[in-house]
Amino acid sequence: MSARSTIMDDNSFRAEHADALDPATRALTERREKSLGGSYRLFYRRPVHLVRGEGQYLWDASGRRYLDMYNNVASLGHCHPAVVEAVTRQASTLNTHTRYLHETILDYTDDLLTTLPAELDRAMYMCTGSEANDLALRVAKFVTGGDGVIVTREAYHGTSELTSSVSPALGSGQPIAPTARLVDAPDAYRVDTPDLGAWFAQRVSDAIDDMERAGTRFAGLLVDSLFSSDGVLPGPAGYLREAADVVHRAGGVVIADEVQPGFARTGEAFWGFARHGIVPDVVTMGKPMGNGIPVSGLVARTEVLDAFSDRIPYFNTFGGNPVSMAAARAVLDTIRSEGLQEHSAAIGAELLTALRGLATRHEAIGDVRGAGLFVGLELVSDRTALTPDRALALDVLEELRERGVLTSVAGPHGNVLKLRPPLAFASADIAWVTTALDEALTVLTS
Amino acid sequence: MSARSTIMDDNSFRAEHADALDPATRALTERREKSLGGSYRLFYRRPVHLVRGEGQYLWDASGRRYLDMYNNVASLGHCHPAVVEAVTRQASTLNTHTRYLHETILDYTDDLLTTLPAELDRAMYMCTGSEANDLALRVAKFVTGGDGVIVTREAYHGTSELTSSVSPALGSGQPIAPTARLVDAPDAYRVDTPDLGAWFAQRVSDAIDDMERAGTRFAGLLVDSLFSSDGVLPGPAGYLREAADVVHRAGGVVIADEVQPGFARTGEAFWGFARHGIVPDVVTMGKPMGNGIPVSGLVARTEVLDAFSDRIPYFNTFGGNPVSMAAARAVLDTIRSEGLQEHSAAIGAELLTALRGLATRHEAIGDVRGAGLFVGLELVSDRTALTPDRALALDVLEELRERGVLTSVAGPHGNVLKLRPPLAFASADIAWVTTALDEALTVLTS
Repeated sequence: MSARSTIMDDNSFRAEHADALDPATRALTERREKSLGGSYRLFYRRPVHLVRGEGQYLWDASGRRYLDMYNNVASLGHCHPAVVEAVTRQASTLNTHTRYLHETILDYTDDLLTTLPAELDRAMYMCTGSEANDLALRVAKFVTGGDGVIVTREAYHGTSELTSSVSPALGSGQPIAPTARLVDAPDAYRVDTPDLGAWFAQRVSDAIDDMERAGTRFAGLLVDSLFSSDGVLPGPAGYLREAADVVHRAGGVVIADEVQPGFARTGEAFWGFARHGIVPDVVTMGKPMGNGIPVSGLVARTEVLDAFSDRIPYFNTFGGNPVSMAAARAVLDTIRSEGLQEHSAAIGAELLTALRGLATRHEAIGDVRGAGLFVGLELVSDRTALTPDRALALDVLEELRERGVLTSVAGPHGNVLKLRPPLAFASADIAWVTTALDEALTVLTS
Repeated sequence: MSARSTIMDDNSFRAEHADALDPATRALTERREKSLGGSYRLFYRRPVHLVRGEGQYLWDASGRRYLDMYNNVASLGHCHPAVVEAVTRQASTLNTHTRYLHETILDYTDDLLTTLPAELDRAMYMCTGSEANDLALRVAKFVTGGDGVIVTREAYHGTSELTSSVSPALGSGQPIAPTARLVDAPDAYRVDTPDLGAWFAQRVSDAIDDMERAGTRFAGLLVDSLFSSDGVLPGPAGYLREAADVVHRAGGVVIADEVQPGFARTGEAFWGFARHGIVPDVVTMGKPMGNGIPVSGLVARTEVLDAFSDRIPYFNTFGGNPVSMAAARAVLDTIRSEGLQEHSAAIGAELLTALRGLATRHEAIGDVRGAGLFVGLELVSDRTALTPDRALALDVLEELRERGVLTSVAGPHGNVLKLRPPLAFASADIAWVTTALDEALTVLTS
């Protein structure tokens, strides 16, 4: 790959490392190189060959157990029996599409809407977060008549042409739409301001002015309310409120991309945007929605969605099918029955405390921040200058992997460890993470 | 909806019909109206509430059995036990993504590639046909440096912004890309020419000239090799060969959209394009690939795909996950173990013969055509003038529904019954279809 991409290229396996692999792993990497598209990337210099998952744990082919600190897809825990059971039951009974009546999509929608502000009253379903964001952008364009979209400087919103064109995290090989504008994310660690909300709102306002001077009509702001690929920026809660007001005053649409922060992840609220006290016009959701079964969704205000629906039919063959909806129902039910939002808040706070304890002994830890079980740990070479240490972060990933802890990095400098385990992650797992990190930093920085 | 859309609006339930519904059905339609996006469309003036499926049959809430003559998603048959078993087993064991090694994606890819020409040697996986076509178009643009795409006049290729912009079947509300060109589909019933291949190639050649005069560089031709939404146009086999040559001579990419004709549907070949003796540069696949589990794919020549892969990372969270791949493997295995391609050829021929028998007694049947279990039956008000009878086709759909036969229409005039049952469709089912159609036409035209 010619261009650096912060979300895709870090700590990837590369063919020059093949000699160091055991024969079975090497055989699998060679098969991938031969038959899969060149865009595929493996995590780690020594890729992991997984064969089993349960709860927050994964096992490789040699029987070794790993702690999954990265995957919010299996958000209830890997292979959660409630989802497996729901999928098996529905797949054995009926699987069709939305051109026929089926109650599960309606029951699920009623339930989903109770988690959202009352203004957000219409749901549609697709299969991936990319599809949800692609549709959300089309809806914003139709309702405003504009095509100017604002995203953050290291945003990632999807793999379709439209969503890729507002995903600078894909690297310099990916063209950004000329009508789009990139704004710096509200990074409480790196931005020196007494009021981060006002600071961010000013950037959004400037971007609107800038695009309008260029003759582009403003369509909306598309943001992940925890700014995951911008480096995991949880706080302070509320910092999106003024920006949302600016967007609305300018006639634009606020799209909350909840693919990462949604479904109880942040602990403080069921949805990431709710932490900021805003009501978006469109909410998109994906990854954890079916605990691994491909399902995504878009919820919007009727009047916003109608501008699109009145003109263009939308039929997604697999979207909202009874099996995907059964999986999604099981996820919502389990989040409640297992109290996972409260769990995320409590265990996330414990994890933060433990990691901050580690920071007192390791100068390289510049910042530890998070909301619930979505934590960013920033590695720096100089705590005063906040100099990002990307090389150290990549080496730490490898050392963690050798100690059975799987995760990855984020942020414009690629130096933020992104800790986002299945919500099954428990108090007893914290020591594994902190010990591994302690050892990794000791090995690498002493 | 303000604009007619041939693929989405036909025989839809509309609220003015609500009074005629039984209370339970009415309650479900009202719930949909209230909570789902306005783009959703229900089949039939009296929508069907399905609760169970098995093989080629579906059951509604009152216990009534239907013959499914429309769904190629449940292509092996509804709730095929081999797929349910594979999904349950894998979902209970492990479900992750392509950043870790897993053998199922590799085993499946090896198997899939054996069904394709040797030049097509690289696979990628997504969740929907739209995602596969969106990526295929991006690949074509990158490898050619152009963005001029040719599609047929009533084509449908997907729901993303990019694929919608080359999907005129979505109706006049959907903007078509200014760089795209629409060509008439090779319709052996309506086009009076001794050489349909040369006729179609000329249209493609003219479209290339036209776009180049407008300063648009040609990227490629995207075609469903059976032209499903253009009215189901199976023959004569071979008619795509000259057009493919024209595209290649002009430096363009041939993309075969196999979402509908693929996976043994046409009986004559495993892939629709193979009937025409061409080797596309990119093949996209979807609907039947996982028998209802959301999975889609793109297979391409290495040198075509590399132009994209070398510049842009592509990661589809759910694409190629172990559960989707397990479902896809079960589908390929079952197609072979149950001999479904041969079955499709044999039973499709029987069905064609039976329907042609019916045509001798019903003047309204203008044409019956098909390849395997993909059949189009064209209704006309005048056999000599070939006048399309859309109103009759829509009424026939309703009459068939009342007789337990579920299907829909296609084609630029919306007058072609599209008969595309699960491949489980058997010889013994033919009488149900022909009797229902006989009765429907007798009621409606005598």
